[in-house]
Amino acid sequence: MRVRGVAGPHRRAGVVSTAVTASLQETARTVAAGSTTATRLVEEALERLAATEPDIHAWVTVAADAAREQARRLDAGSHRGPLHGVPVGVKDIIDVAGLPTECGSPLRAGRVAGEDAWVVARLREAGAIVLGKTVTTEFAYFQPGPTRNPRDLTRTPGGSSSGSAAAVAAGVVPVAVGTQTAGSVIRPAAFCGVASYVPPVGALSYEGIHPMCPSLDTAGFFATTVEDLALVRAAVGGWSEVPAPRSDAPTLLLMRGDELGPVEPEMADALERAVTALRGDGARISDATLRLGPLEDDHVTVMEYEAAVSMRTELATSPDRLSDILREMLVKGAAVGEASWAAARARATAQRDLVTGLLGEADAILLPAAPGPAPEGLGATGKPTMSRPFQLMNLPAVAIPGMRTAAGVPLGVQLVGHPGREAGLLATAAWVQARLQE
Amino acid sequence: MRVRGVAGPHRRAGVVSTAVTASLQETARTVAAGSTTATRLVEEALERLAATEPDIHAWVTVAADAAREQARRLDAGSHRGPLHGVPVGVKDIIDVAGLPTECGSPLRAGRVAGEDAWVVARLREAGAIVLGKTVTTEFAYFQPGPTRNPRDLTRTPGGSSSGSAAAVAAGVVPVAVGTQTAGSVIRPAAFCGVASYVPPVGALSYEGIHPMCPSLDTAGFFATTVEDLALVRAAVGGWSEVPAPRSDAPTLLLMRGDELGPVEPEMADALERAVTALRGDGARISDATLRLGPLEDDHVTVMEYEAAVSMRTELATSPDRLSDILREMLVKGAAVGEASWAAARARATAQRDLVTGLLGEADAILLPAAPGPAPEGLGATGKPTMSRPFQLMNLPAVAIPGMRTAAGVPLGVQLVGHPGREAGLLATAAWVQARLQE
Repeated sequence: MRVRGVAGPHRRAGVVSTAVTASLQETARTVAAGSTTATRLVEEALERLAATEPDIHAWVTVAADAAREQARRLDAGSHRGPLHGVPVGVKDIIDVAGLPTECGSPLRAGRVAGEDAWVVARLREAGAIVLGKTVTTEFAYFQPGPTRNPRDLTRTPGGSSSGSAAAVAAGVVPVAVGTQTAGSVIRPAAFCGVASYVPPVGALSYEGIHPMCPSLDTAGFFATTVEDLALVRAAVGGWSEVPAPRSDAPTLLLMRGDELGPVEPEMADALERAVTALRGDGARISDATLRLGPLEDDHVTVMEYEAAVSMRTELATSPDRLSDILREMLVKGAAVGEASWAAARARATAQRDLVTGLLGEADAILLPAAPGPAPEGLGATGKPTMSRPFQLMNLPAVAIPGMRTAAGVPLGVQLVGHPGREAGLLATAAWVQARLQE
Repeated sequence: MRVRGVAGPHRRAGVVSTAVTASLQETARTVAAGSTTATRLVEEALERLAATEPDIHAWVTVAADAAREQARRLDAGSHRGPLHGVPVGVKDIIDVAGLPTECGSPLRAGRVAGEDAWVVARLREAGAIVLGKTVTTEFAYFQPGPTRNPRDLTRTPGGSSSGSAAAVAAGVVPVAVGTQTAGSVIRPAAFCGVASYVPPVGALSYEGIHPMCPSLDTAGFFATTVEDLALVRAAVGGWSEVPAPRSDAPTLLLMRGDELGPVEPEMADALERAVTALRGDGARISDATLRLGPLEDDHVTVMEYEAAVSMRTELATSPDRLSDILREMLVKGAAVGEASWAAARARATAQRDLVTGLLGEADAILLPAAPGPAPEGLGATGKPTMSRPFQLMNLPAVAIPGMRTAAGVPLGVQLVGHPGREAGLLATAAWVQARLQE
């Protein structure tokens, strides 16, 4: 059995996990061979959770009894789905039947969901077991929860899907679900040294997920490898085939990220090392002649406007129960005006046509997944600058781990792909990940 | 008090309603003056419902006790919202706390919602009272429910928001909520001789509404006049001002609709009469040089693909509990492929840029709201051909009543506007409606 170290060394705070997990395909084979059971997978996850949670704070609700019961039913049955017995974490803006969906806000405290969200129902059908709900920033915006970065407890895990990224990085669960409106799936994966995937907006039903910005919100997934993400994406989508890593070298468009915002020197260096490594294995990489900088501001405009519509009642009736950062954003959004919103969306659709045209020739755009390593401290979750334009254009993206700073802190690179070629993007990303182990 | 006949004469089936209602602004003034109460408004609605429902079949659930209780609370309180005491109908794919959301399908029978959908919560905050849930076609697709057209009981009310359109047309409620993915708000309003409005996709939160196609679904509203729609839209959006009818004549782009599909002679004639009437009052109307025909097929591609993703479990596990028409659509959608889906979306965004450019100069596109009057029979809900391209481009649209066939059956015209100028579109539509009374 292939084993894989999940949690890296912790340089400033004691080791919080030494867990190892198999790949999901290995797990499936192990279960099929009778060498393990869903019950054992759940018990191991609960043990890892108990060992790491006092340091990490990734979970808001642990559904131990329900998970054990579901595992018993799976063990007693004959059906073997592609995620049979796999424990998963679910971001706490996503409904799980019988558990609260509190959205990281006192305004939602105690609101128990009656049904699974669409994406949770699809994971369960594939055999996955919900271990619990993971920490989200307040309404998936910027106000942090208590979660720490498992790779370095002094650093933020990123947000807004903080707990989902950390739970996978800590080795508690091999898969977790998050959501992205700006950079909430790509950035925390980069900070925590795991892989993540965001399908194009509209590719998955958002039923049962608290919406903030209808034209931007999408569900996404965390795992330790791109290959695991491909298995999860295929299971959720009901794809007939799981995308395998491509065998030939891809053609990539390189964006250094600095037109989107400041890129830290260690990230810029890592991207150059990545380019060298990928070219060394035959990848064709050319500089992208894109001018996406203005879409940064357009994304902010669209996000603020739509959030202000969605949350205008909370702003009007409970401003004192919102964080300062969320309240200020909603106030700004209420002043945006529909004309500015529509103009920002129009610029994005025009750029999207250009970018998808370029992606008709190349396999993906390669750029940083975040401006640098996870920032020190837990008071902020870092910047989504490397994701905003692509989320506004509704393009799929993968965060790929493997790079590190000189001090060993994770750095992520990102591939952005064509909205009509999700499987190809995942196949390309798996090829890239195999060449980025530092 | 201005009174307005709501239900027209019924030529082939006995008169089902002779109800009259005030405009919503009149109602608000009447309530403010103490001349009526929320309780009386609810009781009157329940009386009209009792009188008309045996013929119309617009409702699946009537929440009489809850409506009376809400009315008592409103009457006892001091707050007067813009929709204070107004009874509304809610399409049965939209959650209302404590009532089932059955989506017109046995697969959802008995599923009681725990919370109000976002749009319902906003209506309640404005003082509206949920009278009950209205008939939807199966999962808001094409398989009809039992609803008849109040203007002519032998004809379909249209779909998928069949009950919401019929409940307003029958004079039971002055406002109802529907949803549109293809033409499900615009077409039934045209068939039933009422007004309706669909905001641009993404302008309103879809939380608590059963989603079918994330890039197409939007909530919309029915009322007897465009002025009432403007009041409702402003209340739901928290707008500081209600759009008033414009005082100057608008500039319109004319589409005769025949490039989108066959237009019946009576509709074509009515559109010409409308153009003559509007020009007579100073409107500048020029032929639109748009080529939107191909977007018809692109809308079908996007709708089928996204629906097949959203409903793949229902198709896999319960095909015999789906109607033939829905099952066949889902099977087709499963074969579409993400590349075709993305290509269709790309063509739509390119056209959207062209159309919004034109709408930077003109106030709206004028075209039929449906290919003709409501078809005879209850076995089908008519064709959404006049709406598909605009819904795919995420543009707002208004159905305007007032035209009729020689036999007196309603015909609707439609205005499509700029996504960033909703208030302006409603102001223009109110100007148009005032000139279309036949």
